[in-house]
Amino acid sequence: MSNITDKITFQSKNRGRLLVKCPDQPGIVAAISNFLFEHHSNIVESHQYSMDPKGGTFFIRIEFDCENLEEHAASLEKDFEKLAESFSMEWNFTYVHKLKKTAIFVSKELHCLLELLWEWQSGDLMTDIALVVSNHEEARDIVEALGIPFYYIPANKDIRQEVEEKQIQLLKDHQIDLIILARYMQILTPHFVEQFPKQIINIHHSFLPAFIGARPYERAYERGVKLIGATSHYVTNDLDEGPIIEQDIARVNHRDQVQDLKKIGRSIERRVLAKAVKWHLEDRVIVHGNKTVVFQ
Amino acid sequence: MSNITDKITFQSKNRGRLLVKCPDQPGIVAAISNFLFEHHSNIVESHQYSMDPKGGTFFIRIEFDCENLEEHAASLEKDFEKLAESFSMEWNFTYVHKLKKTAIFVSKELHCLLELLWEWQSGDLMTDIALVVSNHEEARDIVEALGIPFYYIPANKDIRQEVEEKQIQLLKDHQIDLIILARYMQILTPHFVEQFPKQIINIHHSFLPAFIGARPYERAYERGVKLIGATSHYVTNDLDEGPIIEQDIARVNHRDQVQDLKKIGRSIERRVLAKAVKWHLEDRVIVHGNKTVVFQ
Amino acid sequence: MSNITDKITFQSKNRGRLLVKCPDQPGIVAAISNFLFEHHSNIVESHQYSMDPKGGTFFIRIEFDCENLEEHAASLEKDFEKLAESFSMEWNFTYVHKLKKTAIFVSKELHCLLELLWEWQSGDLMTDIALVVSNHEEARDIVEALGIPFYYIPANKDIRQEVEEKQIQLLKDHQIDLIILARYMQILTPHFVEQFPKQIINIHHSFLPAFIGARPYERAYERGVKLIGATSHYVTNDLDEGPIIEQDIARVNHRDQVQDLKKIGRSIERRVLAKAVKWHLEDRVIVHGNKTVVFQ
Amino acid sequence: MSNITDKITFQSKNRGRLLVKCPDQPGIVAAISNFLFEHHSNIVESHQYSMDPKGGTFFIRIEFDCENLEEHAASLEKDFEKLAESFSMEWNFTYVHKLKKTAIFVSKELHCLLELLWEWQSGDLMTDIALVVSNHEEARDIVEALGIPFYYIPANKDIRQEVEEKQIQLLKDHQIDLIILARYMQILTPHFVEQFPKQIINIHHSFLPAFIGARPYERAYERGVKLIGATSHYVTNDLDEGPIIEQDIARVNHRDQVQDLKKIGRSIERRVLAKAVKWHLEDRVIVHGNKTVVFQ
Repeated sequence: MSNITDKITFQSKNRGRLLVKCPDQPGIVAAISNFLFEHHSNIVESHQYSMDPKGGTFFIRIEFDCENLEEHAASLEKDFEKLAESFSMEWNFTYVHKLKKTAIFVSKELHCLLELLWEWQSGDLMTDIALVVSNHEEARDIVEALGIPFYYIPANKDIRQEVEEKQIQLLKDHQIDLIILARYMQILTPHFVEQFPKQIINIHHSFLPAFIGARPYERAYERGVKLIGATSHYVTNDLDEGPIIEQDIARVNHRDQVQDLKKIGRSIERRVLAKAVKWHLEDRVIVHGNKTVVFQ
Repeated sequence: MSNITDKITFQSKNRGRLLVKCPDQPGIVAAISNFLFEHHSNIVESHQYSMDPKGGTFFIRIEFDCENLEEHAASLEKDFEKLAESFSMEWNFTYVHKLKKTAIFVSKELHCLLELLWEWQSGDLMTDIALVVSNHEEARDIVEALGIPFYYIPANKDIRQEVEEKQIQLLKDHQIDLIILARYMQILTPHFVEQFPKQIINIHHSFLPAFIGARPYERAYERGVKLIGATSHYVTNDLDEGPIIEQDIARVNHRDQVQDLKKIGRSIERRVLAKAVKWHLEDRVIVHGNKTVVFQ
Repeated sequence: MSNITDKITFQSKNRGRLLVKCPDQPGIVAAISNFLFEHHSNIVESHQYSMDPKGGTFFIRIEFDCENLEEHAASLEKDFEKLAESFSMEWNFTYVHKLKKTAIFVSKELHCLLELLWEWQSGDLMTDIALVVSNHEEARDIVEALGIPFYYIPANKDIRQEVEEKQIQLLKDHQIDLIILARYMQILTPHFVEQFPKQIINIHHSFLPAFIGARPYERAYERGVKLIGATSHYVTNDLDEGPIIEQDIARVNHRDQVQDLKKIGRSIERRVLAKAVKWHLEDRVIVHGNKTVVFQ
Repeated sequence: MSNITDKITFQSKNRGRLLVKCPDQPGIVAAISNFLFEHHSNIVESHQYSMDPKGGTFFIRIEFDCENLEEHAASLEKDFEKLAESFSMEWNFTYVHKLKKTAIFVSKELHCLLELLWEWQSGDLMTDIALVVSNHEEARDIVEALGIPFYYIPANKDIRQEVEEKQIQLLKDHQIDLIILARYMQILTPHFVEQFPKQIINIHHSFLPAFIGARPYERAYERGVKLIGATSHYVTNDLDEGPIIEQDIARVNHRDQVQDLKKIGRSIERRVLAKAVKWHLEDRVIVHGNKTVVFQ
């Protein structure tokens, strides 16, 4: 953790982000940029998107610098309320120095977990990895070697409810902001999912909506596709149907057997999941209906 | 046509290809390469693929040069019969100087047709485009300007049988080897398809098996995918389920409306179809079950 | 041309764009967005970039809608002057309905020209192609068939000055905004280039800065690279050293001879040039020193 | 190591490879395939390449299965000598069960080393990593945790000769087949390089021949390129000029500062190096002049 905390201290203690979603109308950008200017905040990055200038939804993500942000944050948010109300905004301030708390769920295949840990150690994933949960023991050594608490919670269909209660308790105790399913091979019930709306990111090992469900590489092999893919998405109660954050593919050919597809696929999965998590942590993803707006 | 014929004369009148598919067993390569050597044929390119060395299917594609090939072709084929029989081969000799005869079917959207014509004019698609068939008039001018016969055959559900009879007659009259559906938006009946097994190549405007059937770009937009694709495949009686030859994708984002997806998609479609057709014309594609072996 | 003009009328007669470059300081976005709001202009797309929030250069591109824009344009520009001055802005309003006038220069290889014409016919390149200039006759038929004036101006080293004078005169007469070198194989002198600063876009058939200068495919072949590329850039007096707008690559292998590299390369060249031209026409490119900011 | 050894035992103890390079002439494939057939060896994969069927160089790589290969290897090689002589072949038999011995050189940046170790643990890099050499201590813990000997050999210009002698001794003692420079930031002298011809693979952090030499990311930033790349090549005495095995790129834009290019670049570097090493270990790379033939 020390290196992550260091990076915050030096780089970004005065850096904040504002995310807004509201009905489109003239004057929104002027209002927000005036507000920030008057509150001594300098816009350093800004992305916006109008679904349809004539009556659609408007989205904006602003990254700003503000001297002594930690002190001013409370008044900034309070003052913004009035403006937000007049435009019927859904809005959210976040602060780079306040790391999101993350829990990673994993089963036996460790490639996605390892990629996340590697990115985290390099300072590319700015988050506090509070714990790793697994229904197997494979990941324990590597996780504990990095000083991250590891929870072994065996799971199967028959004890699902009990297992999930234990997991939910753990996540609440640690005040987890984001759950990453890094090839966690147990199904989560609606009861679990509802506790963490837009807070669970999964990696599915196919190019959705192709090969929804189980055994996607086997089915890709059967179909004889020339490309395989992976998809990272928010988890909702509809299996593999949640809002897609990122997808990518790799080329395969007739020589590639199922085990080759899996091997090639692992490299796509880890890349796609790491990107999706990074964008989420940087508040670059806004969910709208069953889609995402991603401000890269 | 003149430039195509010129290229043959200079480059490849002594160039032949041998395609073989048979049960795998030791000694196949030795037998074939001996045969060619004894028949004064020099192997210039060779690709092979063993599905499973212990009892699967074996595939080979050989490109060879042989002095005065045109004269020797008949005896070459006759002599090969015995060898072929002893290994239970499915086999096929083709000759570069004998261009395959192609018919292109198109409706209103011309981008795939134009790409094929452009590649053909550049000498990259070595084929004799014998005719273009369309249920619209949009393509006539450009096609006729290149000296290719254009057949306008209006079509709709009610007259499908009659239309297809006319088309089949035309294709038989011209001894067509390959039918290219370059965004031809009419469904072909099983009756039509059965006349031309492994001889019809289609471009589907999605990354199959995602978005099988109608309106793939609209559905891709609805689903919020981050990549769109196109698939070129042989046509069978199962809609969009035939053996895939080539696929590719392009990246899209939340800003892209349906019309943007279509625009981006057009560029993928034309590239993917042109590649699939090129590989077919060069005898690089072997269909096996519902898959293809593509020897690039 | 008619289809281009049609698209303007229906889609975008009230659509304007504002490009600004100035020293960074707090309050720029607030000032600009207030200005537009007060001038009844609704921001529909906005991109900004701060090189360094503490004292670098600030760039912004705004796309806005304004009722009766054609009438208001003059006063909009006049009113903006004061604001621009107070922030030391370089700035520019452009209007979608006012198409930029383009001249395409080409020699014998037509693939880049054909791609541009095709994109233009599809309505993807919103420009008025006023003329095509060539030192060969190859392009005449296709250009004139589309109703575009074609000027055959033979060129070689010995008559360079005279040729360029003729070209410059033609370009001035037609009030050309953008010159596209679509594989025009003559060198332009500094005298020519200085007349059209940031107004000439070239396609170089290599991944710059690799293989600057002549015969890049031959040299790529000699070096045994595994990827080849193309680069589109603004032309300056330093050969192949101007600000890069777009680059792309394709994979090659040991089988590919020089002629194969050229064939594969053509497909990259036309794609890269078409993108760069499109972005320029949409005012998405800002030159800064020897680099570009591209707001996609 | 145990998992690597296990994989050999079960999968490939009877699998051999034959690499041949010789002047092209008719009958080579027939002769080789007859030879293997007569020696009870079944060809399971074969790639060949004729630079120019009329008098160029011919390359072939064959993968074959042979019962009790370990016993027969000596006689196989001996018998092949006569055939090889008659065709003036350079040739080489290798055996999958006989792992190549590898030494990895690394400095402070560990991403390439970690990728190689990860691929090796997954069984994707079939090699015996005999040692890791570094002029820094950063890699020690991770390397030793995997049971691989780690040698810390401080290095700088002044003690170069002495350092290299120590390294060469170590490499000879361990009978190293392949040296991988996984971001080893010391220059190797001609004396070192000559000891290991075609046995040293380097990763250079640019798309060669662009940005040869030092600080490629800084120079890529200065030039304003839109793509950055990495190149893996055999080391010769000409800096960054050795035969290229693999290259890849990633897209960047004006927002990316030097540190971003480095971050993005790391991901390309590790992927490109891992591929090149894998192909080398599988005997898929044949060096010819200053180029490589890669049989994927």
